[in-house]
Amino acid sequence: MEQIRACVVGATGFAGVEVCRIVLGHPDLELTMATDRKAAGTRLADVYPAFEGACDLVLSLPEPEAIAQNADVAFLAVPHTASLAITPQLLALGVTVIDLSADYRLHDAAVYEQWYGTPHTSPELLGQTVYGLPELNRAGLLALGERHEKGEAVLVAVPGCYPTATALAAIPALEAGLATGDLVISDAISGVSGAGRTPNARTHFCHANESVEAYGVAHHRHTPEIEQTLTQVAGREMNVVFTPHLAPLTRGLLATVYMTAADGVTANDVQDAYERRYANEALVSTLPAGHMPQTSSVAATARAQVGVALDDRRRRVIIASCAIDNLGKGAAAQAMQCANLVLGLPETQGIGATAPLI
Amino acid sequence: MEQIRACVVGATGFAGVEVCRIVLGHPDLELTMATDRKAAGTRLADVYPAFEGACDLVLSLPEPEAIAQNADVAFLAVPHTASLAITPQLLALGVTVIDLSADYRLHDAAVYEQWYGTPHTSPELLGQTVYGLPELNRAGLLALGERHEKGEAVLVAVPGCYPTATALAAIPALEAGLATGDLVISDAISGVSGAGRTPNARTHFCHANESVEAYGVAHHRHTPEIEQTLTQVAGREMNVVFTPHLAPLTRGLLATVYMTAADGVTANDVQDAYERRYANEALVSTLPAGHMPQTSSVAATARAQVGVALDDRRRRVIIASCAIDNLGKGAAAQAMQCANLVLGLPETQGIGATAPLI
Amino acid sequence: MEQIRACVVGATGFAGVEVCRIVLGHPDLELTMATDRKAAGTRLADVYPAFEGACDLVLSLPEPEAIAQNADVAFLAVPHTASLAITPQLLALGVTVIDLSADYRLHDAAVYEQWYGTPHTSPELLGQTVYGLPELNRAGLLALGERHEKGEAVLVAVPGCYPTATALAAIPALEAGLATGDLVISDAISGVSGAGRTPNARTHFCHANESVEAYGVAHHRHTPEIEQTLTQVAGREMNVVFTPHLAPLTRGLLATVYMTAADGVTANDVQDAYERRYANEALVSTLPAGHMPQTSSVAATARAQVGVALDDRRRRVIIASCAIDNLGKGAAAQAMQCANLVLGLPETQGIGATAPLI
Amino acid sequence: MEQIRACVVGATGFAGVEVCRIVLGHPDLELTMATDRKAAGTRLADVYPAFEGACDLVLSLPEPEAIAQNADVAFLAVPHTASLAITPQLLALGVTVIDLSADYRLHDAAVYEQWYGTPHTSPELLGQTVYGLPELNRAGLLALGERHEKGEAVLVAVPGCYPTATALAAIPALEAGLATGDLVISDAISGVSGAGRTPNARTHFCHANESVEAYGVAHHRHTPEIEQTLTQVAGREMNVVFTPHLAPLTRGLLATVYMTAADGVTANDVQDAYERRYANEALVSTLPAGHMPQTSSVAATARAQVGVALDDRRRRVIIASCAIDNLGKGAAAQAMQCANLVLGLPETQGIGATAPLI
Repeated sequence: MEQIRACVVGATGFAGVEVCRIVLGHPDLELTMATDRKAAGTRLADVYPAFEGACDLVLSLPEPEAIAQNADVAFLAVPHTASLAITPQLLALGVTVIDLSADYRLHDAAVYEQWYGTPHTSPELLGQTVYGLPELNRAGLLALGERHEKGEAVLVAVPGCYPTATALAAIPALEAGLATGDLVISDAISGVSGAGRTPNARTHFCHANESVEAYGVAHHRHTPEIEQTLTQVAGREMNVVFTPHLAPLTRGLLATVYMTAADGVTANDVQDAYERRYANEALVSTLPAGHMPQTSSVAATARAQVGVALDDRRRRVIIASCAIDNLGKGAAAQAMQCANLVLGLPETQGIGATAPLI
Repeated sequence: MEQIRACVVGATGFAGVEVCRIVLGHPDLELTMATDRKAAGTRLADVYPAFEGACDLVLSLPEPEAIAQNADVAFLAVPHTASLAITPQLLALGVTVIDLSADYRLHDAAVYEQWYGTPHTSPELLGQTVYGLPELNRAGLLALGERHEKGEAVLVAVPGCYPTATALAAIPALEAGLATGDLVISDAISGVSGAGRTPNARTHFCHANESVEAYGVAHHRHTPEIEQTLTQVAGREMNVVFTPHLAPLTRGLLATVYMTAADGVTANDVQDAYERRYANEALVSTLPAGHMPQTSSVAATARAQVGVALDDRRRRVIIASCAIDNLGKGAAAQAMQCANLVLGLPETQGIGATAPLI
Repeated sequence: MEQIRACVVGATGFAGVEVCRIVLGHPDLELTMATDRKAAGTRLADVYPAFEGACDLVLSLPEPEAIAQNADVAFLAVPHTASLAITPQLLALGVTVIDLSADYRLHDAAVYEQWYGTPHTSPELLGQTVYGLPELNRAGLLALGERHEKGEAVLVAVPGCYPTATALAAIPALEAGLATGDLVISDAISGVSGAGRTPNARTHFCHANESVEAYGVAHHRHTPEIEQTLTQVAGREMNVVFTPHLAPLTRGLLATVYMTAADGVTANDVQDAYERRYANEALVSTLPAGHMPQTSSVAATARAQVGVALDDRRRRVIIASCAIDNLGKGAAAQAMQCANLVLGLPETQGIGATAPLI
Repeated sequence: MEQIRACVVGATGFAGVEVCRIVLGHPDLELTMATDRKAAGTRLADVYPAFEGACDLVLSLPEPEAIAQNADVAFLAVPHTASLAITPQLLALGVTVIDLSADYRLHDAAVYEQWYGTPHTSPELLGQTVYGLPELNRAGLLALGERHEKGEAVLVAVPGCYPTATALAAIPALEAGLATGDLVISDAISGVSGAGRTPNARTHFCHANESVEAYGVAHHRHTPEIEQTLTQVAGREMNVVFTPHLAPLTRGLLATVYMTAADGVTANDVQDAYERRYANEALVSTLPAGHMPQTSSVAATARAQVGVALDDRRRRVIIASCAIDNLGKGAAAQAMQCANLVLGLPETQGIGATAPLI
């Protein structure tokens, strides 16, 4: 089969370089172009010595026409608004876009404007975009794949890292009606790569090392994205209280989610619901009863692991904990999972590996 | 002033050695004895090379009579049940006991038996023991001090690490009536020293490093201790859902606590209540509005820092985050804070330092 | 092509599980068997949750007959002497052995006995074993491949982690005659996984974290192995002073090597010699002049990166620094590189990935 | 006794804030002033939340007159050349200066210019400055103390971190004549705080974490400082080859030093020489034979630990390893040790603590 040509836009950010790494190891994709506004003209291997001896690609500017000439699919690993600035043009030029930014995740342009403080400049695309959580929206992604095969450029909005882990932790309980009420608390812990590559006081080793802290409390931008997904799943308007924490690791994200158990629900009911929900998912595993996941088990992979418990002493609360790699299933690997579905490839192609951390 | 003679029982565990370190730097205490069943006969500096050149004490066996001969006060840094086995005898021999174990924390012997799976063998002591959270029970500790000064041996039960951080995060809201309902969720993250010094699969560097995970979900033994304190503070029976996590740092503990806000409570009300509650506390600080604490700010100290926020979008939730050092304010330094109060010394004597981590 | 059946002996050690991970991702190998004396009967995924959802293999006992029935090639990831106990039998049963232990690395049985304190029980195999450093002994490995293709079981002794990094750092200078004298100092730093999976005081997170230390000074068992290789390369008897250090990372090994520069040698000579030596190596890269490698660039890979400098102020010393992953190029991935050569596969098959750490 | 008033210039850098922390805990010193050009006007506790509740000092500009009005002694924790710009004026104004910068360490202004690339603007001060390694130059520091007591402002040049550890590792062998030749190799590993507080690519958590690397190979500016000290000690011109490495820890520095053993020297001779040399030093310990130090044993302290071995197989090499805290004995705590000597205080006043890391 002919190689599918891929361009990574924003290739030097942590998510972008992870997409590059995955494309380089993908049997059906070829990394034909990687862009970075600031580093254009230098080799990717000069920025990330890990590519020394493996990839000699020179970074270029993110010009839509050049991308359209060189690539069938573009992965956008850019900050919000940067995708707004380029995606409509890429689609018009026939390039299928797998967008890792937040720009097309929220269905409602008004909510986007409220949380991101800037108007949405292509709200007409929101209706035809699929939110790329394959375990929830596989049918939608496959439908995009049919359109892509007919030559149409399509757009996938890859979920954020916290929304991915929170959704995977909450979906089985909400879908099965085991959780009642409208409140879900998501208390999550992320590795420092989630804070991005730009050096600042918070990402300085001596600040982040040997410390944990909460941040963005009560106003993190992933909140409405999580609420949108849980509302879709529960069939009623859900309210999410979300607290992210920073911990001293490079990769990894754990979301521990609290939901009110419906009357009569037992621990076995909960365990069964989670096991059934993910039984046929290649990349999401429910751990045996009594086990909770650790992030190192899924580090640098497209995988997620979920553990669940019921605190049924007095107030009855379902506690579900989901481990992902914030750059893997939480970003680049999930982007590739979506791309595989859209491009007609096996869903785990190039992203089936297990975790290299011990 | 004559030096007060101190013995540390269980001196090679992580909390025990931290008590030793604090005693060595304390201007009014002298480390006359340190015990360890297994390492008796060897120098403490042979077990912990940090003491090389600073302390030549040889570890001895924890014989009550020897302790009574050598010490005015004994710090017990032992596993639960080990304190039951020695405390009554020490008290009878006239030694004031600062107990870091869980054995005398719960007022109700039946609750102890339920959670620790073993009967309480000296329930008669529970009534005269003070739970050593000075910010809550300072009067009780000072009253013990009066009895100690008259020559009576007294007993302090030093709180656990998670209960300390959770209590300090929840007390101002509960005392001020800002939090309603009977449910408090405490989602906490601890450094690995909280898992103790015994090497096992979980404390192996390659397991703990670069990973976070929940453990003891829905059944951690600190739960009833937290409930006891919050019930005392709130004046109504409180139910705690408690999830501890392990993160890759040596020292540090962060508890993020969720409480339902009472009607009409504003973010300013919450901030004010916390600032007022801790205004006169030397070791607990409320951070300015909008700031959340990080554990490195209190590492290796007796200090705690609290930050608070109100999520008032729809479901109105108070989120309070408290950072301590699990071995400091969460164990050894808080033990010394209690000892200072009982021994008639300034409360922060020997434990006033600020954090050496950056 | 039919899958080649592979057995991993000692599958729960850190090197063993890494071989399992590599085999699972290898397009031409199938993991048909994995053994562990203690964990036999349980699933590998129960020991390493990273395999949950990816591998359901149940661990078995290391019985040679069973291995011979189930596998064409056996990877031995066992402590020294354990390979002596099983390798002759495996070879006799027709199983090609890729031995990650130290048992067949030293050509001289007397040196083995001197450093390992136990007699070598199958010295007759030493003459027909190839030391599996492909960048040095590729011809020998390919020759084994010819014998393997004819149905003969062959034996590869995979180098130790420190010897691999030290050799790759020193070979170009010694081969090109740029280094004079008989002394090479290798000062190396390893991640904690190099200390093995058994929990002990040294591998406890709280001991290893936030600390570096030297160990095994002047008597580490990798010393004679390094001397054997450097003597082979230099064509004269070389003496190695070797100091390993432990640093707080899971994976990674850096060897910084000091050699006396021959008269007249310039910095350019040195840089050129290293670039030329590795120009055609797929897995070893010489960094541009002025750059030194970091271990994260090769973490979890089969790759090595080398940087070199000349201190020519007065005493003229060549300083070469080589970064590998102690479990990757330093163990499991190099074992697979050797296996690929012996099995007639492309040398980098299944091990071509770049580093997932940033 | 009246408190001695201290000013810390450059109080927000890592060494500067550590001096502040030490002064705050010092019984005889009072932190009357702390300066920072950029942060002047804000509280130190706003920059370092660790001081919240412990210190309300507002940062000011480093105006010499203001310093002279407010302080008896000034600790300069500034980059090189910044000390040149202020020290002569401070001395003229009667302020004793403890300079942590590199500006007055080298006795020869020409060597300074060669390595720092800028002329020395007050070479006349070099002759009356004492290099503040108390274990080597205690007499000189005490002589400064006599002048200070008479009202004269004096100047101490506090050694760099690598020179401190290397000197402490090499001094006993060189002084005792156990090491021969003119070459000393110092291979050292530092925590990331040594790279300073300014965020950049190298200090980003995701770069430094899980990695080790050499840097500044063959041209690090600490080289001439080390050579100056070892030449003084050996009584012959010594040549140092120095390779610093970066490891993923916040605090800590280990220097492993290689010296050629003189004929006939035994391992016992070496061990004895080190034990004798440091027997009366309060802050430097020689570990028992067979033990090597780890940096966590001295973290956040003024202490140093040294271990030593002899590799006497063929080429006979003395290997000595010294652990310090780069910000402690390697900077701020050593500055205070010097200040104590100059100010007529007990040498370990305020810096006698043992390490809080386990």
